[in-house]
Amino acid sequence: MNKKEALKIYTEQMEKISAYSLVLATTYFDRTTIAPSKGSAYRNKMISIIGGESFQLQTDPKFIEAVMYLSKQDLGELLNRDIAKAKKALEETIKFTKEEQMEFSLASMESYEAWHKAKLSDNYKTFEPHLIKMIELSKKRVNRRNPKAEPYNVLLDDYEEGMNMKKYDEFFSLIKKELLPLIKKINAKKNYIDDSFLYKYYPAEKQAKFMKEVLKYINFDNSWGYMGETEHPFTSGFSRNDVRITTNYDEHNVAAAIFSTVHEAGHAYYEHQVDPKYDNYRFLHDMSSGMHESQSRFLENYLGRRESFFKKLYPKLQKTFPENLKDVSLEQFIKAINVSKCSLIRTDADELTYPIHILIRYEIEKEIFSGKAKMKDLKKLWNQKYKEYLGIDVPNDRDGILQDVHWSEAMFGYFPTYAFGSAIGAQILHKMEKDLDIDDLLAKGKFKVITDYLKNNVQKYGALYDYNKILKLATGETFKPKYYINYLKKKYSKLYDIKG
Amino acid sequence: MNKKEALKIYTEQMEKISAYSLVLATTYFDRTTIAPSKGSAYRNKMISIIGGESFQLQTDPKFIEAVMYLSKQDLGELLNRDIAKAKKALEETIKFTKEEQMEFSLASMESYEAWHKAKLSDNYKTFEPHLIKMIELSKKRVNRRNPKAEPYNVLLDDYEEGMNMKKYDEFFSLIKKELLPLIKKINAKKNYIDDSFLYKYYPAEKQAKFMKEVLKYINFDNSWGYMGETEHPFTSGFSRNDVRITTNYDEHNVAAAIFSTVHEAGHAYYEHQVDPKYDNYRFLHDMSSGMHESQSRFLENYLGRRESFFKKLYPKLQKTFPENLKDVSLEQFIKAINVSKCSLIRTDADELTYPIHILIRYEIEKEIFSGKAKMKDLKKLWNQKYKEYLGIDVPNDRDGILQDVHWSEAMFGYFPTYAFGSAIGAQILHKMEKDLDIDDLLAKGKFKVITDYLKNNVQKYGALYDYNKILKLATGETFKPKYYINYLKKKYSKLYDIKG
Repeated sequence: MNKKEALKIYTEQMEKISAYSLVLATTYFDRTTIAPSKGSAYRNKMISIIGGESFQLQTDPKFIEAVMYLSKQDLGELLNRDIAKAKKALEETIKFTKEEQMEFSLASMESYEAWHKAKLSDNYKTFEPHLIKMIELSKKRVNRRNPKAEPYNVLLDDYEEGMNMKKYDEFFSLIKKELLPLIKKINAKKNYIDDSFLYKYYPAEKQAKFMKEVLKYINFDNSWGYMGETEHPFTSGFSRNDVRITTNYDEHNVAAAIFSTVHEAGHAYYEHQVDPKYDNYRFLHDMSSGMHESQSRFLENYLGRRESFFKKLYPKLQKTFPENLKDVSLEQFIKAINVSKCSLIRTDADELTYPIHILIRYEIEKEIFSGKAKMKDLKKLWNQKYKEYLGIDVPNDRDGILQDVHWSEAMFGYFPTYAFGSAIGAQILHKMEKDLDIDDLLAKGKFKVITDYLKNNVQKYGALYDYNKILKLATGETFKPKYYINYLKKKYSKLYDIKG
Repeated sequence: MNKKEALKIYTEQMEKISAYSLVLATTYFDRTTIAPSKGSAYRNKMISIIGGESFQLQTDPKFIEAVMYLSKQDLGELLNRDIAKAKKALEETIKFTKEEQMEFSLASMESYEAWHKAKLSDNYKTFEPHLIKMIELSKKRVNRRNPKAEPYNVLLDDYEEGMNMKKYDEFFSLIKKELLPLIKKINAKKNYIDDSFLYKYYPAEKQAKFMKEVLKYINFDNSWGYMGETEHPFTSGFSRNDVRITTNYDEHNVAAAIFSTVHEAGHAYYEHQVDPKYDNYRFLHDMSSGMHESQSRFLENYLGRRESFFKKLYPKLQKTFPENLKDVSLEQFIKAINVSKCSLIRTDADELTYPIHILIRYEIEKEIFSGKAKMKDLKKLWNQKYKEYLGIDVPNDRDGILQDVHWSEAMFGYFPTYAFGSAIGAQILHKMEKDLDIDDLLAKGKFKVITDYLKNNVQKYGALYDYNKILKLATGETFKPKYYINYLKKKYSKLYDIKG
């Protein structure tokens, strides 16, 4: 095999693999948004067959040979990185047979559906055997991939290249030390801010109408994006110019859908704004979870919860729901959407308590993969930690251990990137504040200046570099958690008038 | 190769082929309903790669060997038919290389998109080269498949097994002879029935709301069906329990979306009600176009245009649009939706003039494939025939030669099945009238009794038999066009008070 041959095999095979990804992503999106329920058994079986076909391509001996050969060549920065990431993906997949891969994919889909049903019927018992199976399969797979490493470290690195328990332990202990005392003080000032109007009745149909205004304001354009509806909102980048997001309307919470939409749009922008020069390098679009979360939370929190963000939007929201909002001022509304309270649901949590929800999941996952946690006690463990850190009793499974989709699909090690991503975002925000007058831009509806800034300083790099290199390029420094901690302490001390 | 081996190969390969069909159908549905426009070039390329993969499976030498071997065995009625149809499909596809297949698939997609744009901008010139390319490719392909046959006969048989120009010529000359004089008489009584209220302003949003009532009335249930929106409505059966339809709202025609929805639901029922015993026989779900149209037009016309069908629905329609309909009685409404007039658009045409729209397309297609028609004159030919048969001038391309999607995707030979299907439906109706009190059932909202009748007498057979055998089983007779002609003559003579 020479370089020319190897490159030809690599390029052709990667294009095929991309084609499988596109049709599978489309079928997943369809499945979770609109597909008729009775077709699911057949659909899942067919998806697993196509997944198996794609897996066979990815493990084709000729392709592996080409990747291994090319990984020893210097082919320029882009191709070097693309092939390095391809090689890492390969080193994992070649450890499994096609049958094992299909079995895992089918088990995941069954587990996802069991979770969905269990959540609807508020019954953890029906999901428990699936969760245990997912954990066992994950442990087996991680062990096969890297028998010498700490299993959880392998998973943490999967979702955020370069991260491990040591670094996350440091990060989360800082969060515990710095934020828990503030959370306690705020909790003592219960009902300091009235946000009851957010939880009146807001019909989904009208929320959907207002959401069109939000999408317009943030320039989420149907020439490159589409929004559907699902129980658990998500983003799926089909290609740079075809990014799908979903939202979910809670008729007794007008803020939930707004922030989850803006959050997913933040992900969508990242997918959309990768440098077009990378279009043919599949793995340069394979961004890490933490980096991705830094962009989604940037839009959701660092932009979306500002008064200036709602300067143009709030009058429209008032007009859509005059019965609930006509006597609520913009200032009151902004205070309400920034209320901090110890609550049950991660996706509805405020910025300050959010990392505590993640801390809980991180600690449980650590116990699962160290073997300390007993499989039959996971729900108990969940409820105990919510009591310990947030001081609340979990009243049911739906709002407890069944609230998130991730574990049903064996995404262990993913949760920590949510808090980590927020911290990355805060560091970018700190720099952006120096470069732009964010409030002025938002108030004037010049959202594009901000998304262009994110494109030019962060998003265009795609997955070319790891988080530290991108942060260094964007902010001049590698990762520093102080920006996140300082941001939260300053914002919430002021909002709740808490000294020192 | 022995029987057991051959069956194993056949079964496994057919399952894989089905998996490709499902993800491709999903991606097509996504593409035409919601996909962002800028992603189309990439998407089309990826679709053509997956299409190529699927094609490779279908032409795998081992698979071909298995099919050829099995086609000589007696394997029972179901498998015999499944394999016979598989063999026919194979005998066609093996004549083309994978590259030719991908080129054709890509050219079709480009042609489809050119048509879509040309229609929006009302400019046939931009679509013309694509249409000519589609015709040339079709001729080349038909010639390769069967160099000795009349090209158009090959295409006609593709869409309706057993049909050819001789049989269609007979059918259409009867239509010309029996219906054109009646159409002329009715045309002389212009404005005999007032239907102007149908064309007032009906906002799409409200139409969509009413459509939910229609879907409920006909039991189109989201456990097995889903409805989206597209320019050109269609049905796609992903599996027996997952059937997709689309509709299109015209804000100046309240009837258009209702009848196109009910029409597609008729197709959907056929896909849904095939005997579950056939689930693993892919080709038993490959129903002919004419049979399919017999079911869609059955719901649209033979049920949907009756007064009894609207007994429960019309008050709801009035309530949705009081500004337009509060003073219009049910009787007036029913007359209006059955008005016959010589018009431009096939899909909006009434039952009586509809077969004339088809006659025009049939004659043009005949001329195209006999070589008589000049490629540069197709638009002229279209406009001439509309003048000759329907007495109307075609004012623009959008409402003329660009109105239908079919030719853009090389579906030549398909149109005749629309009229033929109506005629099949009329024969089934004649028998059903003897067996059921249709008006009583519709008025009482017992739609299920009727769809069950269609299931048990027609739809359950799937593609196990050809149209004549199914008609024989359902009505006791092979195909007789008289039921169609008599139905139309009786209905429209009465409506327009025309004697003998």
